[in-house]
Amino acid sequence: MEQRHIISVLVDNHAGVLQRVSGLFSRRGYNIESLSVGVTEDPLISRITIVVFGDDYILDQIKKQLQKLIVVKKVLELNKKTSIFRELILIKVKAKPEERLTIFETANIFRAKIVDLASQSITIEITGEETKNEAFIELLAPYGIIELSRTGITALERGNMGINYHNRYDYFKED
Amino acid sequence: MEQRHIISVLVDNHAGVLQRVSGLFSRRGYNIESLSVGVTEDPLISRITIVVFGDDYILDQIKKQLQKLIVVKKVLELNKKTSIFRELILIKVKAKPEERLTIFETANIFRAKIVDLASQSITIEITGEETKNEAFIELLAPYGIIELSRTGITALERGNMGINYHNRYDYFKED
Repeated sequence: MEQRHIISVLVDNHAGVLQRVSGLFSRRGYNIESLSVGVTEDPLISRITIVVFGDDYILDQIKKQLQKLIVVKKVLELNKKTSIFRELILIKVKAKPEERLTIFETANIFRAKIVDLASQSITIEITGEETKNEAFIELLAPYGIIELSRTGITALERGNMGINYHNRYDYFKED
Repeated sequence: MEQRHIISVLVDNHAGVLQRVSGLFSRRGYNIESLSVGVTEDPLISRITIVVFGDDYILDQIKKQLQKLIVVKKVLELNKKTSIFRELILIKVKAKPEERLTIFETANIFRAKIVDLASQSITIEITGEETKNEAFIELLAPYGIIELSRTGITALERGNMGINYHNRYDYFKED
């Protein structure tokens, strides 16, 4: 079955690791919808969050291959119902002075922050779940979006346990 | 000179593009400190924001090589003084019931949001500039960080213009 998957990978914080991990997906024609990576609480370890859309069977193979890489410490597919997903988006939108107030109000309702104001534009930061962010972008689109930059999704499981609580093969349980 | 660089790259939204871009860095031993990628206002185009630390001369060569890839539409090194940088971090911290209030207060001062509360832990979302985020993590560390996931930095230039305003060779001006 084809569906969306969100995968957390703990890896060594080394040059080339990101390329090897993303390569496993692209070699099988799996387009990465979003990817974010940064160091964890342990500076030697980075955490990669990958969002992909595709066939379950192929993804299972990719996960098994990921596990085999020495640089990969942990692979976990996050359960959408029991995890928190967040993305940060910066949007620069055209705004004539007389349009500013309406845009401010819209931002307010979405709890978005104005981070820059220029003569003909406003730059806004929004965070949250994707559906909310998409609704906000849609509302701004008529003004004219000059540019937009998003972090991609990062995610954690709800509850007391961390990814290290799972053993290396726990992702099988998620299916 | 060795220093930190933040580079925005507009690329085709295709399988394998991320791997090729990150590969240009890792082949030269350039460790990527953070990377975030997501689609832009144009669904055919993704924007990659890369943070690297290293030698200016080598980075210049990497940027020239990036430009040569057909899948790369634009490369721009962002000027730190005239750009907005943001990161989102999810932090799950140990919290006994009697510690909760102090953690709530700390989160409040940093304008961080509580996104999950469990019997022995709190999960918090913080966004902003790196120095603020790092200060927050340092304050939480004594409680015991269970896990932490960050998006990596995303960035836009301040002002009315978007990345498309620059021509393909504008990054030379940033030096």
